[in-house]
Amino acid sequence: MQKVKDFKWKQGITTEELVSSLSNVGFQSIELGKAVETIIKMKKNGAKIFLTFTSNMVTSGLRGFFAQLIKLEMVDMIVTTVGGLEEDIMKAHNEDFIIGDFSSDDLELYEKGINRVGNLYIKNESYVKFENLIKPMLLKIYEKKKRLTVSEMLKEFGSTLNDENSILYQASKNNIPIFCPAITDGALGFHLFMFQQDHDDFIVDIVKDFSSILLSVSHDDKKGIISLGGSISKHHAILAGMLNGGMDYAVYMTTAHSSSGSMSGATTKEAKSWGKVKDDSDVVTVIGDVTITFPLMMCSVLERLSKEGMLNEN
Amino acid sequence: MQKVKDFKWKQGITTEELVSSLSNVGFQSIELGKAVETIIKMKKNGAKIFLTFTSNMVTSGLRGFFAQLIKLEMVDMIVTTVGGLEEDIMKAHNEDFIIGDFSSDDLELYEKGINRVGNLYIKNESYVKFENLIKPMLLKIYEKKKRLTVSEMLKEFGSTLNDENSILYQASKNNIPIFCPAITDGALGFHLFMFQQDHDDFIVDIVKDFSSILLSVSHDDKKGIISLGGSISKHHAILAGMLNGGMDYAVYMTTAHSSSGSMSGATTKEAKSWGKVKDDSDVVTVIGDVTITFPLMMCSVLERLSKEGMLNEN
Amino acid sequence: MQKVKDFKWKQGITTEELVSSLSNVGFQSIELGKAVETIIKMKKNGAKIFLTFTSNMVTSGLRGFFAQLIKLEMVDMIVTTVGGLEEDIMKAHNEDFIIGDFSSDDLELYEKGINRVGNLYIKNESYVKFENLIKPMLLKIYEKKKRLTVSEMLKEFGSTLNDENSILYQASKNNIPIFCPAITDGALGFHLFMFQQDHDDFIVDIVKDFSSILLSVSHDDKKGIISLGGSISKHHAILAGMLNGGMDYAVYMTTAHSSSGSMSGATTKEAKSWGKVKDDSDVVTVIGDVTITFPLMMCSVLERLSKEGMLNEN
Amino acid sequence: MQKVKDFKWKQGITTEELVSSLSNVGFQSIELGKAVETIIKMKKNGAKIFLTFTSNMVTSGLRGFFAQLIKLEMVDMIVTTVGGLEEDIMKAHNEDFIIGDFSSDDLELYEKGINRVGNLYIKNESYVKFENLIKPMLLKIYEKKKRLTVSEMLKEFGSTLNDENSILYQASKNNIPIFCPAITDGALGFHLFMFQQDHDDFIVDIVKDFSSILLSVSHDDKKGIISLGGSISKHHAILAGMLNGGMDYAVYMTTAHSSSGSMSGATTKEAKSWGKVKDDSDVVTVIGDVTITFPLMMCSVLERLSKEGMLNEN
Repeated sequence: MQKVKDFKWKQGITTEELVSSLSNVGFQSIELGKAVETIIKMKKNGAKIFLTFTSNMVTSGLRGFFAQLIKLEMVDMIVTTVGGLEEDIMKAHNEDFIIGDFSSDDLELYEKGINRVGNLYIKNESYVKFENLIKPMLLKIYEKKKRLTVSEMLKEFGSTLNDENSILYQASKNNIPIFCPAITDGALGFHLFMFQQDHDDFIVDIVKDFSSILLSVSHDDKKGIISLGGSISKHHAILAGMLNGGMDYAVYMTTAHSSSGSMSGATTKEAKSWGKVKDDSDVVTVIGDVTITFPLMMCSVLERLSKEGMLNEN
Repeated sequence: MQKVKDFKWKQGITTEELVSSLSNVGFQSIELGKAVETIIKMKKNGAKIFLTFTSNMVTSGLRGFFAQLIKLEMVDMIVTTVGGLEEDIMKAHNEDFIIGDFSSDDLELYEKGINRVGNLYIKNESYVKFENLIKPMLLKIYEKKKRLTVSEMLKEFGSTLNDENSILYQASKNNIPIFCPAITDGALGFHLFMFQQDHDDFIVDIVKDFSSILLSVSHDDKKGIISLGGSISKHHAILAGMLNGGMDYAVYMTTAHSSSGSMSGATTKEAKSWGKVKDDSDVVTVIGDVTITFPLMMCSVLERLSKEGMLNEN
Repeated sequence: MQKVKDFKWKQGITTEELVSSLSNVGFQSIELGKAVETIIKMKKNGAKIFLTFTSNMVTSGLRGFFAQLIKLEMVDMIVTTVGGLEEDIMKAHNEDFIIGDFSSDDLELYEKGINRVGNLYIKNESYVKFENLIKPMLLKIYEKKKRLTVSEMLKEFGSTLNDENSILYQASKNNIPIFCPAITDGALGFHLFMFQQDHDDFIVDIVKDFSSILLSVSHDDKKGIISLGGSISKHHAILAGMLNGGMDYAVYMTTAHSSSGSMSGATTKEAKSWGKVKDDSDVVTVIGDVTITFPLMMCSVLERLSKEGMLNEN
Repeated sequence: MQKVKDFKWKQGITTEELVSSLSNVGFQSIELGKAVETIIKMKKNGAKIFLTFTSNMVTSGLRGFFAQLIKLEMVDMIVTTVGGLEEDIMKAHNEDFIIGDFSSDDLELYEKGINRVGNLYIKNESYVKFENLIKPMLLKIYEKKKRLTVSEMLKEFGSTLNDENSILYQASKNNIPIFCPAITDGALGFHLFMFQQDHDDFIVDIVKDFSSILLSVSHDDKKGIISLGGSISKHHAILAGMLNGGMDYAVYMTTAHSSSGSMSGATTKEAKSWGKVKDDSDVVTVIGDVTITFPLMMCSVLERLSKEGMLNEN
């Protein structure tokens, strides 16, 4: 029986010390502490780890952190939605996103050519730059291969970038596959369509990519998932795990609740009924804004692995 | 200046009367009333209407209602995720879903071969039946066409069903396209992959399907969206609208909030900054469980259109 | 095993028919259906019923509905917060509240003397009128009694009003006690304080009022609670029930979730550990905006009781 | 125009460094950063600061942190609900609370005499101990004074404790008033009632306590509020500030949203319409579980004030 312990500040308190103290403090802080332990177990037991996130996580500055986690060999497969990958390319080409306000005058923003995502702003120009960048990339890819999977295409994109903080760059360099089952659901969809108008034999083969994610792990592998937000990113990784016998470890971080039966709010507990996670798996769901909970959890994990010499800080 | 009016029950109160009264009652009930007016405007002004929903809406019994709305010519394009379409096929072949409990013992369910979605249960057998049904469907489609879009494939699926309450059946019969950009993100993904193993020239062309949704409306059309839940269903329809000059009308129903910058929680207000909806558009966001708010809103809409002779009740 | 049944609209669908259909539709609609059955059981088994609500429920137009429920003898005790009672008095003296917008310019409203509660507006003038009304009421009460409980004071307030739609009026007329443990937490607090400055022997005895709520039910009574929103209103009624052996029936309606350990989000399931509800009690928690879910549920209840001749429609 | 900056982990990252980095990362992390700046401004400008929290914050281990903040002279007035104060007394007498599970078997807990609050457990014995402690305290107070305010009574309670981690102890020792307008809404309510049965002239004067909170600040003071969760704690402090011309600084931390018009979800933006905060005030609302966001924010504040020699670390 673990007791609640009163939290106290001490001078110079590190993130690891904070999270460690909070694991004895009630409600979501307890779950955060459990999530840290679960991820450390994943690593110690050599699990192959899926990291999934929604596009807005990239819009926020977590992008560089995701890239760092790939570089540190913390994750083995990534599943996400296309919007964030577009933004990763924009940012790799020095487009800046701006900190704004949830209560902005949206018509005024529209007139200024600024698009709002919560309290962040993306300029129309960034999308224009993306358009100019993506066209030659597609042509180059087409010249090499006419029919390819989404993950192959994304690897090619990454190979053209040169930015330590880029998800696509680090994934390409470190041979970490990025899966994105709804690849047309963004500006890229439009550009792919335009490109295909002139190159009818250009095929993005999502069916074949299903085999890639399916075979990225095996029944015999220990398997883990760190899922941020909901959407098909979360579902797709879970599905790949389930078809391989279920995850051994699962950490879901989300703002959604289970009451509406949505995938975003689906809990690790519900996952047991499906065999999405194994019956004896280590699982935890942390409710809260991922831009706060994820760095907090993950810095604590990195710190501990680093101390134990288990982090590849090349 | 519209005043708050005290709500009172009266004997035999109809759904339309209830919603009408609630439009003078504070908080989300006001927004629900505005949503009714917005949809009536869509119809009166001949807008082409996107209906988007997440899979869990089909798991719940809203499936028959969506089918009815298609039959009543209330919507022109559908965007959804694949899980719900799989379940539509199961249900069209008499598989029943069960009402359960949010606090179920999930390990016990697992052992019984029951999968939980919130307070609903789906049996493993239903997935087995789906597998048996889908294989011959794919073969039949392949014999007609080797490379096809998702919406073409879904139309073929629908044509094999014979159930008034089926979304796929009604959509196929009434020539309403169903778009599903992440078609591999479900059991179907696995079956498509297996099929392609034996038929390598079988291509599901998602890029080409982007042109289908893009050209399903035009800049000159009045355009509306009724979006239930979040996910790529919501985003994909908005994107198609935006590339055609933005929606004129938008009703978002969701349980998510804007505070985390997610697509599920993105508001119709934020949409204005992007030009996702026009600057002078009629838009409203209703927060709450869609299995309650959507039937309430939509029954009220149908009732009013019926009274004005604007409903095609053939 | 109850099956999910596809929902369908039919012309002229009543609220009762809608809710009845929705009870076979997934997620919160199922819980709404259970809530209807639970309240019908409360009435059939002669339970004494606590109705609790937060002030914002009165700000919205549910006030007249609460008054109607008192008149129809549907509830036996009320627990609420003071703000709503102040507003009940304002409305009984013809002050109107206005339907506004969640995204208002709050500084502009401030300059106009308008106070915002979500998408509703209350004018400063309404508070001025309240001030003018309350002073003579307090003097009159003081002349009768120097030391009194909150519920006694509220009964006196009600007796001065003459408005069928007033909660205080109907409660006073029908001898339904209103408990309000934090009586000073509003404009009334200020006016009580000013009054006491001149009348030091004026005592509002909250301790004595605790005996009133405690003795309003007994261990032998069947006891039920319908709790709308959270706050001390909810907790106070639950406490009174617990000290009398626990509720036999409980319906909690709220937008809050259990993840933060708050009273607003505390579920009927958690309540069992405390003995707040009995181990074999009928309990249900419905998540969603109460201005939608409560009228929907309660109209359905009234309709059914009316049909069975169990409603006192004098 | 502040740019989004990619977050990166570095070895030994302190809490202050983490929060500082996160202030350039999107969504609630930005708001968290603003909250830190707002509280630092409060202190630098000599504002009198209200700290409000709900009982569950004490159930969790934030209790010792609140006590520490009082000792460090970070706050000037406290407003809370009675349940947490009861628990503060239990804990000061060595009662332990246990870390449990959100998905507990609540009937089993009930049979074991364990009460659940989210994922925490409180034993029935702790309430028995409280009963034994509170009776002599009340008698001792009564012997000194027959009619007293809530804050006077709470000061007396605190003076009997001897625990550095106790809120009541530190508040009593440091002359920080604790306001609790709904003092009877808990086990204490029952014990006060029992005591009054035998001592009819024992009066808890809540009306007089309203003058205490009202006069705890003046129009001329700079005033700030740090509000955790909702409930009357939040409202009561805001009210006291409003009657003194409005707050100059406000930080609201909550899991609730504004969509339902509740006090828990009421934003600092809405507060401007009421004059609850001044038109040029510094205000920020942070959405998320307070057991995570509050320690994160406050450790960062303490660290920075400490570095600037502005913290009273006697």
